[in-house]
Amino acid sequence: MSPVQLYKDPTHEVLMFTDLIDEDGQAVQSNQFLICDGDTGAVIDPGGNLAFNELFLSMSKHLVPGKLSYLIASHADPDIIASLDRWMTSTKAKLIISRIWERFVPHFTKTGKTDDRVVGVPDAGGRLPLGQHELWLLPAHFMHSEGNFHFYDPVSRILFTGDLGASLVSGKQARQPVTELKPHLVHMEGFHRRYMVSNKVLRLWVRMARELDIAMIVPQHGAPIAGSQAIRDFFDWLESLQCGIDLLDNSAYRLPRNTINPRITVGMR
Amino acid sequence: MSPVQLYKDPTHEVLMFTDLIDEDGQAVQSNQFLICDGDTGAVIDPGGNLAFNELFLSMSKHLVPGKLSYLIASHADPDIIASLDRWMTSTKAKLIISRIWERFVPHFTKTGKTDDRVVGVPDAGGRLPLGQHELWLLPAHFMHSEGNFHFYDPVSRILFTGDLGASLVSGKQARQPVTELKPHLVHMEGFHRRYMVSNKVLRLWVRMARELDIAMIVPQHGAPIAGSQAIRDFFDWLESLQCGIDLLDNSAYRLPRNTINPRITVGMR
Repeated sequence: MSPVQLYKDPTHEVLMFTDLIDEDGQAVQSNQFLICDGDTGAVIDPGGNLAFNELFLSMSKHLVPGKLSYLIASHADPDIIASLDRWMTSTKAKLIISRIWERFVPHFTKTGKTDDRVVGVPDAGGRLPLGQHELWLLPAHFMHSEGNFHFYDPVSRILFTGDLGASLVSGKQARQPVTELKPHLVHMEGFHRRYMVSNKVLRLWVRMARELDIAMIVPQHGAPIAGSQAIRDFFDWLESLQCGIDLLDNSAYRLPRNTINPRITVGMR
Repeated sequence: MSPVQLYKDPTHEVLMFTDLIDEDGQAVQSNQFLICDGDTGAVIDPGGNLAFNELFLSMSKHLVPGKLSYLIASHADPDIIASLDRWMTSTKAKLIISRIWERFVPHFTKTGKTDDRVVGVPDAGGRLPLGQHELWLLPAHFMHSEGNFHFYDPVSRILFTGDLGASLVSGKQARQPVTELKPHLVHMEGFHRRYMVSNKVLRLWVRMARELDIAMIVPQHGAPIAGSQAIRDFFDWLESLQCGIDLLDNSAYRLPRNTINPRITVGMR
């Protein structure tokens, strides 16, 4: 399917790709994003090797590949940036990623591919020039990754939140923004309880995020959350969510007794 | 240099590779491990694309590649397992990794490469048959990764701890086990304070680890920690360490005001 146009004005466009990965396979559904501003642009969370070919081709319809300024990665997980080697070969873009991952990402590539191409973002974040505007890199550490950023586009008023707000749905369902949070929670809750680190950081983040004027929250898995009521409900839900280490006690760290059967693989369960 | 032989008896051998990555490059130093038991074996934390060629060649001197049973990954970071596509092509080994990453690792590879090859480990861990023995997969969640395991080899009494116990030193220094903890802390402290998630999980983990008979703690970056005194001191240090979210407050999550200069890359700082 064609990408979802999340925003468009004469000089600025935001596209979301939700279905570049074969859903019959065993990889989790993921979204990738392209922001074009004038004749330049950035890919946010470009994804793994499964997404590269189609995303690159699709991007080329909107932007000369040599004009791509940035690959912007919320963190260093494979579904975020495992395609790095191919992007480094096919474009001149710089990689924007947390400073605490800057020495880890070269492991994705062959020797020397990332030299002079990685911009390490300090923990406080910052504002990144993109065409005639700026993209804001907001601290989102420990949600889930230790060095994690979200991205706010003041033109479209979209907040890209990586794994925060993720829902486990199909690529087709991910195209349709959610405007009522309650029926959507069933797709979000299990993931957030296990992958988000602690209620403490959720609360610190919500306090910051409430200061923004947000039209849409767009996660890297599943559907966007749109409209002021659903966004407020999302913030309220996060503030009350116990997750990650909040839920762990001695019973979670015990010497194992059960034998693992290595003949039982993911697809067989 | 040749790998470090951490243990050897007539049927069981443990090897550590510390210097497969060009140290003039910008990638963090990483260790990879090979355990041979009889005519089979496992690679622990095989590393990224930078390490693959040399590790595969070196492994082939000790083991017929077709006899490799497992790739075992403590978690899903690029320095741990970004070489997955090449290992899936070159061996018949299964990938052993946390169940919470089992649908993320296919993003490292081309379509279908991991089908029927990924064994997702439940949060409680388990004992994995390897030749005539078992390798224990111990819960180490949130140290740092949400789904994280350590590996205990009851034959060599080595505990492989991934990023826990990591020290930032050269590949040459990493060959020499540390038997006195205090002078070594300077190489460990900054990393553990930023990448480990919380003192709460360190304490839960130490309580479990103290039940094991450990000859050596071997991290995925830097030098092993050997001998009962240094290991006890390491446990005591972890129990007292404040880290990760313990150190965060409102000041860590603020809307950014500074502009990022994308011309300043890692090598230029």
